[in-house]
Amino acid sequence: VAGLGLIGGSLALALRRAGHQVIGVDRAAVLRRARAAGALTGTARTVSGAATAADLVVLAAPPDVNLRLLEELAVGAPEARVTDVTSVKQPIVRLARRLRLRGFVGGHPMAGREQGGFGGADAQLFQGRPWILTPERTTDPAAVRAAERLARAVGARVVHRKAAEHDRAVARVSHLPQLVAWALADAAAGHQDLAGPAYREMTRLAASPPGLWAQILDQNAAEVEAAVRAFVRALRAHGRRGRR
Amino acid sequence: VAGLGLIGGSLALALRRAGHQVIGVDRAAVLRRARAAGALTGTARTVSGAATAADLVVLAAPPDVNLRLLEELAVGAPEARVTDVTSVKQPIVRLARRLRLRGFVGGHPMAGREQGGFGGADAQLFQGRPWILTPERTTDPAAVRAAERLARAVGARVVHRKAAEHDRAVARVSHLPQLVAWALADAAAGHQDLAGPAYREMTRLAASPPGLWAQILDQNAAEVEAAVRAFVRALRAHGRRGRR
Repeated sequence: VAGLGLIGGSLALALRRAGHQVIGVDRAAVLRRARAAGALTGTARTVSGAATAADLVVLAAPPDVNLRLLEELAVGAPEARVTDVTSVKQPIVRLARRLRLRGFVGGHPMAGREQGGFGGADAQLFQGRPWILTPERTTDPAAVRAAERLARAVGARVVHRKAAEHDRAVARVSHLPQLVAWALADAAAGHQDLAGPAYREMTRLAASPPGLWAQILDQNAAEVEAAVRAFVRALRAHGRRGRR
Repeated sequence: VAGLGLIGGSLALALRRAGHQVIGVDRAAVLRRARAAGALTGTARTVSGAATAADLVVLAAPPDVNLRLLEELAVGAPEARVTDVTSVKQPIVRLARRLRLRGFVGGHPMAGREQGGFGGADAQLFQGRPWILTPERTTDPAAVRAAERLARAVGARVVHRKAAEHDRAVARVSHLPQLVAWALADAAAGHQDLAGPAYREMTRLAASPPGLWAQILDQNAAEVEAAVRAFVRALRAHGRRGRR
């Protein structure tokens, strides 16, 4: 597992609980913390180094870093079975195609919370949640099976989607709500003392890590833009209906 | 209490629990149901009829009906102490001023839920929530004190605001979120199978009664429009930041 933040850390904890060996790749301080929490059975300096010993490599770093790690694997371990947990699928799937990495299968567990980093990690995070896989026609079936076993081992429900369909859907059910939460918090600044539980629920996501989100929104820019346009149209229509 | 829907019904239940007498005014079927639930000690055919026997009249019908009931009181019981629970304060406060009803004080308990009608009523609904009062310079102080006692009797926290400030704030923390919930549900239609808990929280309000909301949004149209504009500006700014 390369990247032991919220998702990678939760995955490592859940895999250990299911009896699997887990090699961690991250900064030394994070590895120490993850090891102390019982999330790891080993560590490696580089993702290529870990790949030689692993049945499956999971790229769980921020979106832009995952692209770089995939390029590193194309040089250091081109035969490895690899999946990832990036929230946007087309950029990394296209890169894998260009690098001819038949052992790569795109993945995205639909689970999260506001508290990022290993500090927010939770072995139960994936329980009952959809785990999307985006195999292509040319993907090695053994890699797909390995990614499916991974998802099921941590309690998730495997869903296959085309990468483009995935990106369209998450733009609407995940990326748009994130922008909306920030914008609602802005628009209500100074009036929150009168806010009720519904408002607080609707702005809960505003606490999510902005740096990570900038990468996600950037990688899915076209679909997010289309989602924002559809949303603003619907918003104005509902506003007009209110005024009769 | 005129109107035994979610708010009026919850109020009647909470007042009874606090040992007060409650006269209900509503359609016969609603009165029967409220009576069976122990929310009432008496009923009246008209709000003016109830006013003669009551220390304080609470208008808890839909926003447009409350305006009509206030006009009825101006004729049938102009000396009554009256408050209301309408989500928009300027229209009813202006009407009271025009009708020279010094016994009227505008009110708005900041509490609610999606399930409307007496079926959703809950004696705990106001517990710890802000209850906004909007007395004017000319309002009878005895009416203000009566409204304050009412709010405190059901566990709410009294907050005084100017009607215009109230309407500006609720446009942003309540009316805008309602429009946003509808628009988010529209924009994500067909993709909800991948939605997580955050999306479900953010669209929970979409189940609120549309007829009631049309009246609220209509009565607060100018502030809601300003809130939507500020929100859309913020949304686009966050979207651009995502694309760097």
